[in-house]
Amino acid sequence: MFAHRSLLAASALSQEDIRAALDLAEEYVALNRRRDKKGAVLRGLTQINLFFEPSTRTQASFELAGKRLGADVMNMSVGSSSVKKGETLIDTAVTLNAMRPDLLVVRHQMSGAVALLSEKVNCAVINAGDGAHEHPTQALLDALTIRRRKGRLSRLTIAICGDILHSRVARSNIALLDRMENRVRLVAPPTLLPPDIDAWRVEVFQDMAEGLRGADVVMMLRLQSERMSGGFVPSVREFHHRYGLDREKLANAAPDAIVMHPGPMNRGVEIDAVVADDLERSVITEQVEMGVAVRMAVLDLLARHVPGETGAAAAEARA
Amino acid sequence: MFAHRSLLAASALSQEDIRAALDLAEEYVALNRRRDKKGAVLRGLTQINLFFEPSTRTQASFELAGKRLGADVMNMSVGSSSVKKGETLIDTAVTLNAMRPDLLVVRHQMSGAVALLSEKVNCAVINAGDGAHEHPTQALLDALTIRRRKGRLSRLTIAICGDILHSRVARSNIALLDRMENRVRLVAPPTLLPPDIDAWRVEVFQDMAEGLRGADVVMMLRLQSERMSGGFVPSVREFHHRYGLDREKLANAAPDAIVMHPGPMNRGVEIDAVVADDLERSVITEQVEMGVAVRMAVLDLLARHVPGETGAAAAEARA
Amino acid sequence: MFAHRSLLAASALSQEDIRAALDLAEEYVALNRRRDKKGAVLRGLTQINLFFEPSTRTQASFELAGKRLGADVMNMSVGSSSVKKGETLIDTAVTLNAMRPDLLVVRHQMSGAVALLSEKVNCAVINAGDGAHEHPTQALLDALTIRRRKGRLSRLTIAICGDILHSRVARSNIALLDRMENRVRLVAPPTLLPPDIDAWRVEVFQDMAEGLRGADVVMMLRLQSERMSGGFVPSVREFHHRYGLDREKLANAAPDAIVMHPGPMNRGVEIDAVVADDLERSVITEQVEMGVAVRMAVLDLLARHVPGETGAAAAEARA
Repeated sequence: MFAHRSLLAASALSQEDIRAALDLAEEYVALNRRRDKKGAVLRGLTQINLFFEPSTRTQASFELAGKRLGADVMNMSVGSSSVKKGETLIDTAVTLNAMRPDLLVVRHQMSGAVALLSEKVNCAVINAGDGAHEHPTQALLDALTIRRRKGRLSRLTIAICGDILHSRVARSNIALLDRMENRVRLVAPPTLLPPDIDAWRVEVFQDMAEGLRGADVVMMLRLQSERMSGGFVPSVREFHHRYGLDREKLANAAPDAIVMHPGPMNRGVEIDAVVADDLERSVITEQVEMGVAVRMAVLDLLARHVPGETGAAAAEARA
Repeated sequence: MFAHRSLLAASALSQEDIRAALDLAEEYVALNRRRDKKGAVLRGLTQINLFFEPSTRTQASFELAGKRLGADVMNMSVGSSSVKKGETLIDTAVTLNAMRPDLLVVRHQMSGAVALLSEKVNCAVINAGDGAHEHPTQALLDALTIRRRKGRLSRLTIAICGDILHSRVARSNIALLDRMENRVRLVAPPTLLPPDIDAWRVEVFQDMAEGLRGADVVMMLRLQSERMSGGFVPSVREFHHRYGLDREKLANAAPDAIVMHPGPMNRGVEIDAVVADDLERSVITEQVEMGVAVRMAVLDLLARHVPGETGAAAAEARA
Repeated sequence: MFAHRSLLAASALSQEDIRAALDLAEEYVALNRRRDKKGAVLRGLTQINLFFEPSTRTQASFELAGKRLGADVMNMSVGSSSVKKGETLIDTAVTLNAMRPDLLVVRHQMSGAVALLSEKVNCAVINAGDGAHEHPTQALLDALTIRRRKGRLSRLTIAICGDILHSRVARSNIALLDRMENRVRLVAPPTLLPPDIDAWRVEVFQDMAEGLRGADVVMMLRLQSERMSGGFVPSVREFHHRYGLDREKLANAAPDAIVMHPGPMNRGVEIDAVVADDLERSVITEQVEMGVAVRMAVLDLLARHVPGETGAAAAEARA
């Protein structure tokens, strides 16, 4: 059983939590491939997708996940214009909470904002990405994809490459993959590594050939140029030359290495089209499919903590 | 039984209408606090939320209300750019009506636009706010909040304070609270009072201390600076000094007075954060919760007038 | 039985396909006029409305159609800003396909884009309008409206008038009406006719009086000034004088001729308000109603090709 009321960070998940989520997600992979994809475990529950930062694909994934499980799903996109004052995040949280949702999926451009919000509400909160901090369902869907392709989720060598600095995907993956006892490598120029890198149990490489040597999994990240105002902005041509994944660099990895990317891809920047579209190696589309299944599993597991109708829980719910 | 096919104005409601809506809303307050919030009274019916003016929280409240009762709910946001010609409102109404909705929730920036639209369609129309005119479900949710806190909805002294001029919330509340035989006071500078003030059965105060003296309910309004182009624009600092609700001004009200606000709040303008967040006095979050329940009750009551399958009504529906 | 897995073009439909769609749509017209409009044929299926070009009314029509048949419906609006690179359309298609939709409704500003997208997915695709190419459900809803009013869909004289050049509505209607063995006339200035006009089995007129003489159906098109950048832009006043439908020009048509328009109308440009609102002749509102029913029929027919749970189809679905 999943031990948490909310899912705020991959770093908070135990091995048992991770296995519970992935095992249940496998069932939902099968459900989603059926003609009748309709479950009922969230029937009567209300899920609100609260996105302070737009994200077509992540919101779509959560929306489909909730609807297929029978929840009433409502999307709310909050423009940055209406979030000028710090207090508004809290006012929004308190207002929505008064509408009695059971599951609140939140994306916000500031690290820590989702955890802050979760303290002000009494429903389950799922972090769908907060700044450069965490994106735990992405780490879970990546884990499911790896486990299905490699037959295990431990004792693998995984190279995470590119713009680590701005990547919540990298942070969540590092936490989860380390927890599952894998060997995690980061491959990036020093300017795209976060300052707290020494606190992580990773090996750091600046050279792709070295970093990819013998890797079982090559996980590319999107170059987030839009987050680089002010600081260092690498030359895209130079970045592609040194860190863009092409056939030649990939040849350093294990012969059966898989290639991952959280999407959306900058083709020709961090990854070449010929690698992205190589169905022998690339599992990028499978990651999207696993995303819906993993989110269904997370919603299902968290909903089990929503108090039911009888006894003390119901009394509390009515208070 | 609710006597109306549509809900266009609080001023059209009788005491019986109001009691019917609030009594049914109480049942929905209980439903919304359950794990399984799913009703079925709107099953098979189509609800369209047609918003010519954006409103995240009101639209969300109506969307959840409809979904929890089993309706098929569709949101339509019509940008002001596509409503340049007067006829377009009518064309939009006639077009939507041809899609056979049963319940049409409409917000529009012009007073009277929702009533005009309701003449062109043959489904139930709910006014979700038209210009500075009416917002009847807000008055009903405020009434429900007051009745739950005060144990009655009559013979109370209620002070409505601030920007009365631009407030459909004020107009709807004045009509409903007067109908229920309360004593209504308005507290505002002369520049923020409407010209037709003499037609209303209210007492008018310019001084907060006087206007709040002994009041059972203090209802603050949002200062709608965005609607003040051209005319008088008060200094926010001056307005806050004279009309912003702080502990000191509130001390003039009855010791058990409650504080209300329709949201979203301008903290530090019409209300101080310390008052807004004082859970002993402020019922602002409870108003939001009552909003969903009241809208469920209104949708339910209006849907009872939608013709059924048998006999003359069905024949008419098929004509 | 409908022979197609997807609906990309009216020109691909046989007489049998058209009759199957219209006959089933008649049942949905009746359903939509009932209080309980809820069907179940799409229960458990996922429908995604993917609109690269905004369209409030067409999207609404498809959304209601899917919801009333029990599908889980998700809207995705993709701004033109995120579709700069040609590959992005394909990436979007492949990503959405991985989420396992059953029915994908697509509108795109480029002719041929929907057919291209359909090659990359393994679900049913419905073309909801691609550039100036095709809009097959519009042709089907127009056909249903004509058949109901005229008692047949063959051997009629139909005049399609105005901006043929930019009109996917015209192209789809010409294809369908020709297939059903009608006499199709185009009435337009030479500058608003497409260059490939000689390939079509139509009569062309420049004069409205001549083109409308004895016509059973007068189908007006919206003047799409917004698509005329660069090329010829007619004077609106001159266009209205020569091609705008007024009572005088309409008097040339058959005494029981009906007037159609796909909406939204430019009143006073291609059609006078007095003609548009003449309920004896104008069937414009009825077209909107038929639109929902026709889309329900198309969704239903295409869903019958979605593999079921048993045998080979299920095995394939799981592959």
